[in-house]
Amino acid sequence: MPRFPAQPQKGFSDYFPDVLRAFRHVERQLHRTAALFGYEEYDGPTLEPLEIYAAKSGEELVREQAYVVRDKGGRELALRPEMTPTLARMVAQVQKSAPRPIRWYSIPTCFRFERPQRGRVREFGQANVDILGTPSCDAELEIFFLIRHFMENLGANRGHYRIRYSSRRYLDGLLAQVVGVPEDRTVEVRKMIDRRDKLAPVEFEKWVREAFPEGPVADRLLRLHEFTDPAAPPLADVPAAFRESEGYRELVEFHERVRQTGLDAVAVFDPTIVRGLDYYTGIVYEVHDAGTENRRALFGGGRYDNLLELFSNEPMTGTGFGMGILTVKLFLETYGLLPADVGRPPRDGAVYVACLSPAQRGYAFSVAERLRGRGVPCELDLDFAKLGRQLQRAEAKGYARVAIVGEDEAREGKVTLKTLAGGAQETVGLDDLPARLGSPGHRPDRAAG
Amino acid sequence: MPRFPAQPQKGFSDYFPDVLRAFRHVERQLHRTAALFGYEEYDGPTLEPLEIYAAKSGEELVREQAYVVRDKGGRELALRPEMTPTLARMVAQVQKSAPRPIRWYSIPTCFRFERPQRGRVREFGQANVDILGTPSCDAELEIFFLIRHFMENLGANRGHYRIRYSSRRYLDGLLAQVVGVPEDRTVEVRKMIDRRDKLAPVEFEKWVREAFPEGPVADRLLRLHEFTDPAAPPLADVPAAFRESEGYRELVEFHERVRQTGLDAVAVFDPTIVRGLDYYTGIVYEVHDAGTENRRALFGGGRYDNLLELFSNEPMTGTGFGMGILTVKLFLETYGLLPADVGRPPRDGAVYVACLSPAQRGYAFSVAERLRGRGVPCELDLDFAKLGRQLQRAEAKGYARVAIVGEDEAREGKVTLKTLAGGAQETVGLDDLPARLGSPGHRPDRAAG
Repeated sequence: MPRFPAQPQKGFSDYFPDVLRAFRHVERQLHRTAALFGYEEYDGPTLEPLEIYAAKSGEELVREQAYVVRDKGGRELALRPEMTPTLARMVAQVQKSAPRPIRWYSIPTCFRFERPQRGRVREFGQANVDILGTPSCDAELEIFFLIRHFMENLGANRGHYRIRYSSRRYLDGLLAQVVGVPEDRTVEVRKMIDRRDKLAPVEFEKWVREAFPEGPVADRLLRLHEFTDPAAPPLADVPAAFRESEGYRELVEFHERVRQTGLDAVAVFDPTIVRGLDYYTGIVYEVHDAGTENRRALFGGGRYDNLLELFSNEPMTGTGFGMGILTVKLFLETYGLLPADVGRPPRDGAVYVACLSPAQRGYAFSVAERLRGRGVPCELDLDFAKLGRQLQRAEAKGYARVAIVGEDEAREGKVTLKTLAGGAQETVGLDDLPARLGSPGHRPDRAAG
Repeated sequence: MPRFPAQPQKGFSDYFPDVLRAFRHVERQLHRTAALFGYEEYDGPTLEPLEIYAAKSGEELVREQAYVVRDKGGRELALRPEMTPTLARMVAQVQKSAPRPIRWYSIPTCFRFERPQRGRVREFGQANVDILGTPSCDAELEIFFLIRHFMENLGANRGHYRIRYSSRRYLDGLLAQVVGVPEDRTVEVRKMIDRRDKLAPVEFEKWVREAFPEGPVADRLLRLHEFTDPAAPPLADVPAAFRESEGYRELVEFHERVRQTGLDAVAVFDPTIVRGLDYYTGIVYEVHDAGTENRRALFGGGRYDNLLELFSNEPMTGTGFGMGILTVKLFLETYGLLPADVGRPPRDGAVYVACLSPAQRGYAFSVAERLRGRGVPCELDLDFAKLGRQLQRAEAKGYARVAIVGEDEAREGKVTLKTLAGGAQETVGLDDLPARLGSPGHRPDRAAG
């Protein structure tokens, strides 16, 4: 028996090439979208001081979920559970010099000790896209455009997903001034609303009624999810003070802009969107599967006004989102949106070089190198087996064409080019080979642009 | 005063966009080279059980250098100090089904607690390229071709770097049968030779003479680095038994193939190449700066025959290398081989959209989205400042062209397209804009192929 299991630790993943390609597909579309919007990629340390997460992300996340390393100096470092504190730290270093707004993105690996389940693992890639230095909600509009563009790049349309938005400031005002939640219970109620999606309606109702057994608060809370226009909360007595509050005006204005720019095709106001993290202060948003297959939010984000305060005396506002690569991959699988060939190695334009005997080894290497030099991907068979065996291997590896090298070919500076499907073959001189194979620089069907 | 410093922990790095681009440049060339050679990318967990490193990489590496996390189940996990044990574990899962040879690569983040210095940090990206299942040294030849191709992609030629190779089996035989090192001191002497490059010659000599104060061993060890042909050790009495050993025959044959395939232009035999890791069994190799600026090896690798034994009952031989992305970046800087514009955001074909007033916001967003839909990267100014200010910002962000949107433009479905250098401007209709900007699908100078 081997000494150790071949499987990874629970909650951790092996990414074999066929699996990794699906993740890379999602990441590539994000890189592409980010570039189209002028966002620049950054990265930071996987390990940061534990305190910066405790100070900003909420105690629960850190104490229950962090992987903690004590370095040789005795300092407690956490494997980052999220990227935003690192972003804040880095922005604090350049906030005086960088042209605003700062448009940055990253795809860090993050770690949380959670119970593994569908879409939730202990180590995960999480894209982060942020725009800092623009106080107006045009920044949120841009982020929504970016999300839509990204989803379209992935092949998703308005039938597949929905951006749902609300505002922390609006909700707090609504709870205090309209629903009548006592100030010291705001945080508790926010959390209840945040978890509403994860509970059956009867369970949620039971919970609310137990929390507010007397007065009208429970009834009002239970009607919260019913309205779709932030200017029209479904409650009889909405005081003027609420309508004049910053949270109200900001969200109503944003709602209007979403409509004006046509984003309402994919984005809807949803008063139950709260976001769990403590640092959000303004408009918050999530992206959800429009169906019921994937209940976890695909993206989550919001506006933060005070994020830099741990690292800088100068405040800087920003908004941005995190997006789980795995979550998006599962979403694409649900709707059949992953490219059909994502599981197979890309062998477009590639060729397998079969070599009949060790005596032609040097020639076979030089054929392969010449092809690669012209941009033709090229894999060399290295065990000089019978030709049939080598052709089988080429097929198993996904190649459509094989360049066969034997004694005659080596002597004459040629190869026998064989197409596996159909079996047609021809002898081609080395100089003509790249053009014959349609290398990137010589693809006949691309000649006209 | 802010509560926390804005700087990362000692030995850890913030990758601001201008810095990250240089790392990505190195990685991109590796992805490109790997694809040309038919290598597929894989990835694995950042955390693995501590024991698998202790069992395979040598005690020192693990006890002194590993960052250790105790998970909630009490198990000790290490942040991977290297990728090879993970590779072995993963290969063990697919060794029966995957077509051979397995050609895989990865660019994992690894962690070692070391004293930070030039080229050495505590968290680092390390490319790993391996070929498994081919016992012959043609696998090593392929790896050397791949290294040369990669270096050429980076702009490095034979004047910049050297591949140095030897063999563990050969060296052990040489030490035992030719130099006369007692078997129980082989490991100690291997380590001395491995560290030779890091010491001044007098220091090394002192060390060797103290270790072997009597007999001819010290003198012989001090002459070891002098020879360049493995078939001709510079010692009078080379016994026939050594010349018949597997280690000797294998290395001499490999040396000859390197010559035959022309790889000797960049690769030389060097008997002092040992490699520190315990799992190497055959041919080992390093890539070094041909000059003196960068003393650390750029790449290091070798043949391992027993790597899978921790996870599988079936042995599988392989060879491969690790390569520090930072080390290669420093090498490129030394020789001025980083692209001149790597520090600046790529704005090729991109356009900045300036919007003169909030009333045209919706139109400005739609202009930007239309351009992006045609593949034109497009950044939108979001604060409606005076035009001059917006143009300055466009320039600071590296844009060459600005699409200006005001009342007239919005009404007429046009933009004013301004070239910042020179200041020429013209009015262009939205439909003509992508072609006018030379979007990827419509670049006039590409039309002919």
